[in-house]
Amino acid sequence: MRIGIVGYGNLGRGIECGIKQNDDMELCAVFTRRDPNTVKILTEGVPVYSVGEIEKHKDELDVVILCGGSATDLPVQTPEYVKYFNVVDSFDTHAKIPEHFDHVNAEAEKNGHVALISCGWDPGMFSLNRLYANAVLPEGNDYTFWGKGVSQGHSDAIRRVEGVKDGKQYTIPVESALAQVRNGENPELTTRQKHIRECFVVAEEGADRAKIEETIKTMPNYFADYDTTVHFISEEELKRDHSGIPHGGFVFRTGVTGWNKEHSHVIEYSLKLDSNPEFTASVLLAYARAVCRLQKEGQKGCKTVFDIAPAYLSPKSGEELRAHLL
Amino acid sequence: MRIGIVGYGNLGRGIECGIKQNDDMELCAVFTRRDPNTVKILTEGVPVYSVGEIEKHKDELDVVILCGGSATDLPVQTPEYVKYFNVVDSFDTHAKIPEHFDHVNAEAEKNGHVALISCGWDPGMFSLNRLYANAVLPEGNDYTFWGKGVSQGHSDAIRRVEGVKDGKQYTIPVESALAQVRNGENPELTTRQKHIRECFVVAEEGADRAKIEETIKTMPNYFADYDTTVHFISEEELKRDHSGIPHGGFVFRTGVTGWNKEHSHVIEYSLKLDSNPEFTASVLLAYARAVCRLQKEGQKGCKTVFDIAPAYLSPKSGEELRAHLL
Repeated sequence: MRIGIVGYGNLGRGIECGIKQNDDMELCAVFTRRDPNTVKILTEGVPVYSVGEIEKHKDELDVVILCGGSATDLPVQTPEYVKYFNVVDSFDTHAKIPEHFDHVNAEAEKNGHVALISCGWDPGMFSLNRLYANAVLPEGNDYTFWGKGVSQGHSDAIRRVEGVKDGKQYTIPVESALAQVRNGENPELTTRQKHIRECFVVAEEGADRAKIEETIKTMPNYFADYDTTVHFISEEELKRDHSGIPHGGFVFRTGVTGWNKEHSHVIEYSLKLDSNPEFTASVLLAYARAVCRLQKEGQKGCKTVFDIAPAYLSPKSGEELRAHLL
Repeated sequence: MRIGIVGYGNLGRGIECGIKQNDDMELCAVFTRRDPNTVKILTEGVPVYSVGEIEKHKDELDVVILCGGSATDLPVQTPEYVKYFNVVDSFDTHAKIPEHFDHVNAEAEKNGHVALISCGWDPGMFSLNRLYANAVLPEGNDYTFWGKGVSQGHSDAIRRVEGVKDGKQYTIPVESALAQVRNGENPELTTRQKHIRECFVVAEEGADRAKIEETIKTMPNYFADYDTTVHFISEEELKRDHSGIPHGGFVFRTGVTGWNKEHSHVIEYSLKLDSNPEFTASVLLAYARAVCRLQKEGQKGCKTVFDIAPAYLSPKSGEELRAHLL
């Protein structure tokens, strides 16, 4: 599989690293909006091109993985690049997935390519677990918790506060809420009862720390609905202790079976990730394999993780899978 | 979907209960090896037939769920009944799955039906999680733990010991081993380090309890390789405290990503089930839905959970799934 990457940030670099772990994959090109001469990638001998020239390479790649953002990049890029390539993206604005799907599907159908959108872990592996668990336990409750992990959006919000030099925010699930769900208590949980937000802030010299803390804790949408803690630390501490991008979370379904619904069941799926972008990249690569196979079988159009049989993700044959993983 | 059940034991009754929770399903017939007049089912107005007459009903059912045992029933029944019906089974002798698959596939292909074999939770939901996690993290380790739950085979083994009137055996994962795996320590675990076995035994009056305990603890294959505890209790206690059929377990994959494999990840899936047969039945029903849809699309042959796109399991449309579960 000849793979192209569009966008060389954290996710793009994660794709580059992941390709090394898959013998059937080869990185063939990286496309960037920056001046290609300024982009130095990790892999020796792989060309970096301007994304404006991507169409020229349309016969050289089996699949292109789009590593841009969901806000403004992917809504434009995915429907555009599926004209020339099979594509995979990680579009994660949940509310706009149906619209994105329709745009991408129209172009994919027209041009005979396969697109897989909204891949990663949420949407992605978490979605799969919600679907399987809902199909198996039709009567029950769903719970999704995120963390412990770094929220980029909330970290950005902290950094916009006056007097803040730098900062990182962790989303943390409330342990007692997890325990209630795990016990099958089917709690009704408010936003505040599900997650806490922990902030590590580097204040500018002479800044009013009490005011910074107050501003963060009362910020609407981001922090006001949560129990938020703010720790002031030095720039060195932030760099030393908080430069990683960990994340993770939990998906539960609790449900009942039996003639009188007398039996309870708990299905739990969880991820604990040292690197959010590298794990996301690993999921995208497994689905890139599936996308290439589907197109070879003559399929076209837009897909999601729901539409793809699990065997397509693995380099192993059906015989091997049945013998060793079933 | 018109559903037939072959074999009315715990699993068959679980199927019967599960059908009530799915609006698109209807129980149309139960087939038994016993005298049909002696089999009283829970659902009003549904006929019970002798399994010898099953072929007569071949145009009346969309799918038949085979609820026999893996040792002697399913190896014969699944290849036989797929001649007349789409079928789903829970064949769980892992080592013989490839052979069973080939037998069933040959008859399914020849007769234009779809069969799904080895469905349930292990094989089944656990297998799916092993496959997805292996595809996403190509470099890593797999761990499966079972329990806490009742092992039927080990309970039977206890009951065959001289002086034992009745008994139940629980398989229990070792907490410290779970913790090591969850921490990403990648331990090498022996059989003894992964599970303990707890036995509740009703001794016959005057039986030699010390000898019973010794016989159980040293029984090859079943108990000798485990730390086993034996509790003697009264018949009333056994009935009161140990008449359920709970089970469950954990599937882990721990793996690495990054240019220098510097980041670790833990994927964990777990089930906590009040009723093993009812949960298994719920999985079989979701896949029965998929089997009927696949055949309507013109497919035939033997499948496993690896071959079926998740969306086929859900009664919801693709639009609904994308809008609400992705």
